[in-house]
Amino acid sequence: MRKKIEVCLTPALIDLYDIEASIVVVIDVLRATSSITYGIDNGAEAIIPVANVEDCLKYDGKGYLLAAERNGEVVEGYDFGNSPFSYTTEKVKGKTIVLTTTNGTKALHLAHKRAHQVVIGSFLNLDVLCNYLKSQNKDVLLLCAGWKDQFNLEDTLFAGAVVEELEDDFDFFDDSSVAAKDLYMLAKNDLRKYLYKSSHSSRLAKLNIEEDVVFCLQLNICKAIPVLKGERLVPLNPLKGTL
Amino acid sequence: MRKKIEVCLTPALIDLYDIEASIVVVIDVLRATSSITYGIDNGAEAIIPVANVEDCLKYDGKGYLLAAERNGEVVEGYDFGNSPFSYTTEKVKGKTIVLTTTNGTKALHLAHKRAHQVVIGSFLNLDVLCNYLKSQNKDVLLLCAGWKDQFNLEDTLFAGAVVEELEDDFDFFDDSSVAAKDLYMLAKNDLRKYLYKSSHSSRLAKLNIEEDVVFCLQLNICKAIPVLKGERLVPLNPLKGTL
Repeated sequence: MRKKIEVCLTPALIDLYDIEASIVVVIDVLRATSSITYGIDNGAEAIIPVANVEDCLKYDGKGYLLAAERNGEVVEGYDFGNSPFSYTTEKVKGKTIVLTTTNGTKALHLAHKRAHQVVIGSFLNLDVLCNYLKSQNKDVLLLCAGWKDQFNLEDTLFAGAVVEELEDDFDFFDDSSVAAKDLYMLAKNDLRKYLYKSSHSSRLAKLNIEEDVVFCLQLNICKAIPVLKGERLVPLNPLKGTL
Repeated sequence: MRKKIEVCLTPALIDLYDIEASIVVVIDVLRATSSITYGIDNGAEAIIPVANVEDCLKYDGKGYLLAAERNGEVVEGYDFGNSPFSYTTEKVKGKTIVLTTTNGTKALHLAHKRAHQVVIGSFLNLDVLCNYLKSQNKDVLLLCAGWKDQFNLEDTLFAGAVVEELEDDFDFFDDSSVAAKDLYMLAKNDLRKYLYKSSHSSRLAKLNIEEDVVFCLQLNICKAIPVLKGERLVPLNPLKGTL
């Protein structure tokens, strides 16, 4: 079977792809999919992604941990946010977390409507994710969450890292896969330096999440692959390929 | 004034950009914008881009040259196509040509509805185009026509070539500009080799336009900048910045 990889550079382009039989990897490395990976790896029972604070606060008082952030700031009265440092074992083990993430939620919902399976990718679980994708007899779409439907570099670099690992096991790569991989090869020796050098817009600097960025660019500190089941992200059992 | 450059990687994303005060450069280097540049440079009075053969044939018998192609083949009964080799001085001087180009026409029409000005870019007129953009006090959007709304490498590489030339004269570049420029720097020593190495899909090889590709990747053999006026592409007078 001829297995293919494609990279969808922003959620705005997802309708161009046939994903009914594919595994879709949702990528929003700063910070949603990194925090989700780390939280599931640290024993969170589930993570529910929502698009905005209003949706997040609907879960208040029902036993959930709420990561209620607006414009990068934790909402007053809450003490848990989107930083991966909130997702330690002590804080999340056995808990279900509701996470506010605009770009990530949009990408997840778009993929969930049509794909065979939706999993979460981040530098933190790169190898375990790639081994899983190699083991499945499925095409793969790497879906970059981007920034308000725009292309962004950090998600594209992660897509490129996956393409690099999978290129011997798949035999079709589209133009955006080729571009993502070549950009990753340029950046891989110092991802953080590349992102900051490149971000002339100072978009990352403005977010004031320097420690989070450094954390999210670590390779392979997690073994978990979160998978979407209904509205909940839960741990995948790679041996079964399903839950 | 803080002048900015952005790169729109496919026409499907153009609604994300404020272009009302911008110059939009439409890029479809294989082959529409290369043939248009070469034709205008060789004295064509105007070139009218249309989306399909049916629209092209409506101009039959009215004194136009018709470049009526379907799936890369010249329609039977016509002897003029989309290859830049059709656009020599002997064939086009003083003539108006109707050109069938799906991706290029779509990009041109989308830009024309909103932009301050729409011009045509190709490797053939890279320097003269960049000098013009430097001379104007306007933001620039580089609009890649792509392939059926998908990202493609050849248009992105040309966008990167423009970014490289303009980076000292502009002071904002978005993430897609950075990516396009870095990909161009990787590819610039042998554009053709890069495109063929990269195109695992054999998309270019399938088109069977090898000679045209080599022609379209030549740098700076033309002085013309085609500009859109109504439905017609005509020569820009760079001294006036208008017609």
